[in-house]
Amino acid sequence: MPITVVGSVAYDSVETPSGRYDRKLAGAATYFSLAASFFAPVRVIAVVGEDFGPEQEAVFHARGIDIQGIEHAPGKSFYWEGSYLDNLNEAKTHNTELNVFATFEPKIPAAYADSDFLFLANIDPVLQRRVREAMPDVKLVAGDTMNYWIKDHRPALLEVLKGLDILLINDTEARMIAGNPNLLQAARGVMALGPKSLVVKHGEYGATLFHKTNPGSIEQHTFRAPAMLLEEIIDPTGAGDSFAGGFFGYLASQPTITPDAYRRAMFYGSVMGSFACERFGTERLQQLSRKEIDDRFIHFRRLTHLD
Amino acid sequence: MPITVVGSVAYDSVETPSGRYDRKLAGAATYFSLAASFFAPVRVIAVVGEDFGPEQEAVFHARGIDIQGIEHAPGKSFYWEGSYLDNLNEAKTHNTELNVFATFEPKIPAAYADSDFLFLANIDPVLQRRVREAMPDVKLVAGDTMNYWIKDHRPALLEVLKGLDILLINDTEARMIAGNPNLLQAARGVMALGPKSLVVKHGEYGATLFHKTNPGSIEQHTFRAPAMLLEEIIDPTGAGDSFAGGFFGYLASQPTITPDAYRRAMFYGSVMGSFACERFGTERLQQLSRKEIDDRFIHFRRLTHLD
Repeated sequence: MPITVVGSVAYDSVETPSGRYDRKLAGAATYFSLAASFFAPVRVIAVVGEDFGPEQEAVFHARGIDIQGIEHAPGKSFYWEGSYLDNLNEAKTHNTELNVFATFEPKIPAAYADSDFLFLANIDPVLQRRVREAMPDVKLVAGDTMNYWIKDHRPALLEVLKGLDILLINDTEARMIAGNPNLLQAARGVMALGPKSLVVKHGEYGATLFHKTNPGSIEQHTFRAPAMLLEEIIDPTGAGDSFAGGFFGYLASQPTITPDAYRRAMFYGSVMGSFACERFGTERLQQLSRKEIDDRFIHFRRLTHLD
Repeated sequence: MPITVVGSVAYDSVETPSGRYDRKLAGAATYFSLAASFFAPVRVIAVVGEDFGPEQEAVFHARGIDIQGIEHAPGKSFYWEGSYLDNLNEAKTHNTELNVFATFEPKIPAAYADSDFLFLANIDPVLQRRVREAMPDVKLVAGDTMNYWIKDHRPALLEVLKGLDILLINDTEARMIAGNPNLLQAARGVMALGPKSLVVKHGEYGATLFHKTNPGSIEQHTFRAPAMLLEEIIDPTGAGDSFAGGFFGYLASQPTITPDAYRRAMFYGSVMGSFACERFGTERLQQLSRKEIDDRFIHFRRLTHLD
């Protein structure tokens, strides 16, 4: 079933212990849609500047991604500059330029209206909410956020959380939202704000899925997926968005969304996140085959299953 | 098959966010032997002072642990004082008194000579090596160590590593020993120093087992066990030693030690580590049933298995 994603299509300059690059195509919606495109049809809502042309469009078209919802505006695309020199698990931001994103008014193409799945990538919660309200008929809504919105835009973020089926965040973000250092208690606190399911990503240690089935015993309804131990983490940028793309893309590929489908989705999320780290930027996601994805899924199963 | 463990039998004063206690029976050999006693016969080599009497002996006897190798010396038992107020994953040491441990000369009772399994808990590597050499006929030797020995007693520690079948340490210790921040590369570096298998404990994120089967591809021979998400981590003291007791105890209970047995041992290690954190000191391990252990094993399987 088709997924619509709203989020940033951007340029990144990044330095990691393995090297650096300048102004490569990036952004949460880019990583998400590339990863999800291996599982389901994907449609993007974003805004780009005059620096986004046929070469960048080709990256999406090569994966069959619908980009008629990417609006072109005068000026430059969103730009982010960061490094992971001290800690591969956490980016240090050196520069953020909103550029065309500063005045972004998301418009949903008529052709997107029959999307069953909606992913609200990490952008201003005001925009997330606007897109959510413009697509009232979607069946499943997932979203992401980050420390900046949690700290300084809490009221707007709380409105978004109310409308989410699934929230995907990391440990620090879960603890920040709930104001509780204990992960299980933090998960319960976050889910009390709206999301029926919560995926907490632990970087190199994998991720945990919580379901709101019975508030008194969510530890009975959790699932843990591992992460891949990589010989070299070339570039962690986009790993979380790629996780979300694999996770949500897999759910969208299923005829019915069972608890077992959620568990397998966690594995596919972890698989796509691991690929994203293997090369700079989106390189690995652009040159990936479904067979490689399925082989890594089998590897993850062997890594965690007793028999 | 019987396990002999050498390590500290001590008194701890500990403060955690859940409360505090003064001079409770503790020490690596105590936690290890209580946890392992649910799986195999355990024999302890240690030294205690005049503060260790019938009440403490009863704790071991209640679990059928052989303590004829616990030597009584004039003076006080080893004493440790620490807290986990800022970070439940890492103890802050306030005071360490070696006391009778300062002049400890391990002696192995004749009745221990037929032990098939030997565990060298976290003590001076010079003592670990002496016990290892005094028991040349054991079939499987595992050990633990800590940052203090890695930093300031490296030559003695390297001698111990040469003679180990299995080393159990945490992430920070693995990275310190190998001098490499990448976990996979650090694991390979540590195993090049001797241990045929390496268990790296990740605290609340579980643990990873590495096997030295083919140096070029250890990532193909890894296994990840989860940790339990606990409503409240009352006291993490002894969790690592309890993990080691569950892991090594389970291996000692097996007629043949297969790769599958290693995987299940990782689960039992994680199970025993999780119980240790549920109450202060050794309280939970003293009041535990085999049924509770097996139920939690099943919970861990559900937590990680796709079907």
